[in-house]
Amino acid sequence: MGYRARVLTVDTLPIARPLSGARYSAAELSSDGDAVYLLDQRRLPGEEAYVVARTASDVAQAIRDMVVRGAPAIGVAAAYGVALARRAGELDAALDELASARPTAVNLRWAVERIGAVARAGSVEDTCHAARALHRDDVAACRAIGAIGADLLPARTTVLTHCNAGALATGGFGTALGVVRAAWASGKLSLVLADETRPYLQGARLTAWELREDGVPVELLTDGMAGHFFARGEIGAVVVGADRIAANGDVANKIGTYGLAVLARAHDVPFYVAAPWSTVDLATPSGREIVIEERASDEVTTIAGVRVAPQGVSARHPGFDVTPARLVTAIITERGAIARVDAAGLSALAR
Amino acid sequence: MGYRARVLTVDTLPIARPLSGARYSAAELSSDGDAVYLLDQRRLPGEEAYVVARTASDVAQAIRDMVVRGAPAIGVAAAYGVALARRAGELDAALDELASARPTAVNLRWAVERIGAVARAGSVEDTCHAARALHRDDVAACRAIGAIGADLLPARTTVLTHCNAGALATGGFGTALGVVRAAWASGKLSLVLADETRPYLQGARLTAWELREDGVPVELLTDGMAGHFFARGEIGAVVVGADRIAANGDVANKIGTYGLAVLARAHDVPFYVAAPWSTVDLATPSGREIVIEERASDEVTTIAGVRVAPQGVSARHPGFDVTPARLVTAIITERGAIARVDAAGLSALAR
Repeated sequence: MGYRARVLTVDTLPIARPLSGARYSAAELSSDGDAVYLLDQRRLPGEEAYVVARTASDVAQAIRDMVVRGAPAIGVAAAYGVALARRAGELDAALDELASARPTAVNLRWAVERIGAVARAGSVEDTCHAARALHRDDVAACRAIGAIGADLLPARTTVLTHCNAGALATGGFGTALGVVRAAWASGKLSLVLADETRPYLQGARLTAWELREDGVPVELLTDGMAGHFFARGEIGAVVVGADRIAANGDVANKIGTYGLAVLARAHDVPFYVAAPWSTVDLATPSGREIVIEERASDEVTTIAGVRVAPQGVSARHPGFDVTPARLVTAIITERGAIARVDAAGLSALAR
Repeated sequence: MGYRARVLTVDTLPIARPLSGARYSAAELSSDGDAVYLLDQRRLPGEEAYVVARTASDVAQAIRDMVVRGAPAIGVAAAYGVALARRAGELDAALDELASARPTAVNLRWAVERIGAVARAGSVEDTCHAARALHRDDVAACRAIGAIGADLLPARTTVLTHCNAGALATGGFGTALGVVRAAWASGKLSLVLADETRPYLQGARLTAWELREDGVPVELLTDGMAGHFFARGEIGAVVVGADRIAANGDVANKIGTYGLAVLARAHDVPFYVAAPWSTVDLATPSGREIVIEERASDEVTTIAGVRVAPQGVSARHPGFDVTPARLVTAIITERGAIARVDAAGLSALAR
């Protein structure tokens, strides 16, 4: 049947309150632990609707289809998927399917392994409890990241961000947008410039939506405009999220991030990466070893259902790129900011 | 009534053959000199249709609406617009309206002044003749630019281009795509990577269409992808057009060009600007003095008629950016390639 069977609004979800801490949430487990509700991010901002996943396979499919996206949010969704698999008593195949739903984000495998271990050793209730705890921990990490990151920003600054590393990309509150939210709350932020982030338009559709919800001033840019605003001195800092951070500090993030890092360095603007520690993958030595997901060409040649390129012309579509550690001013995690972005700097926070 | 009154196909145009030298043309004057036919570039690649402009004001409106775009093509269209004004005997107001239709491209004013001088001193026939000569000269300049530029490229190279500096952006053959066409004809080109070029998608809609027509291998990128392919060593040269080149060699071109120039320099890849000499504006000392057109926010927040950003969120929309001369490897004009991109290098070719 698949996850598409039902579409719900937030007030009809059978949950006490969203663990996200917001009016909406990327992923929630039902109070009974028998269904996962995923805000369908492909429909935003036009429609705010949740799909229901009743099996781990439904969750994996929703991750593949980008109903839910953003490395930490994928981790939370997958943790809940493990809880559904534990209930169904079909753990092995489900863990494999969940872990391999997308290749680049490391939080996915980390969450599946962590909650999978609880599922193997414990009860259905233990597994639900652990998955909810992982969700709560992710939100807490985002709030810590926000506070630490906001401290680093200069006063009255304009922040450029790319893609969506917000409440929608995490358990709640956001990583890069967690920094933005904390900076806004403390009066340090003037404006967010948000790259629209083709091909999926996460910036236009999701970042702009989240920030408008919170009353944070935001203006959209197309992905080619950043250079112009750097050159005019209008950008005070770049803050982005990460899908995986290698042991040497190289950062895989949404395609387009690397170009911003090069521009930031050329204009002497700080470039911050905000991510929970679960994004750090000490088993991957450098960015060279990170698998970059190649997605379908027609996600580029078609926009909003309309073919924009001529028939017979295809497109490249790497989903991510790698920003070398040398271009990163600091990595902001819930354990602290790593201003020495190299293997020694990262391992100092490992425990 | 306006230019929208009729839509024609190329074989029904009352012209002997397109001066563009191709099966299609951005702008042509009727054999009788009483109408200008403009390929409606907003409808490509889905539909290949011409609008009819019967007055200079129609032509100006079509330029403002981006029926025709690309600095040299705007110049050709405006030259034909002057011919219509001469026929109507309403020269002064028409010249002003044409010259001010868009602010950034310098070819527009240059063409209006040049053909305007003929119109003031000569007959209707003299004016039509001069406008057609300007068109032919532009195509000849593009062919010369193509040959000179192709010589500069390494063998078996992949060229990255941005926006559309092709046959559609000129009288015919193209500037940046003139270099691409000449390189392809001489066997030096492996592949063109074309930025889709938001918000107008000139790369996806126009560059891909032109190159597919000519059988030149092309793949689309979103505007944020270039960095990834630079980092992988997949780009051998960048070739772009220009809307205005200042006396010191600073280049105004479609928004997003500057970011590519920064990336090219960071990866030690040559960055070429291909443009007819009419794009050089020796009266403008540097890029600082070039007026950058600000276009409407909803051209960013809406794609193919579909609103992609939340209501209440606006966008920035500079139409162009300025690439400083120091990042330009060479400016390729029909008078030769300027490898010393500064005031002395440019003035050496002025005459």
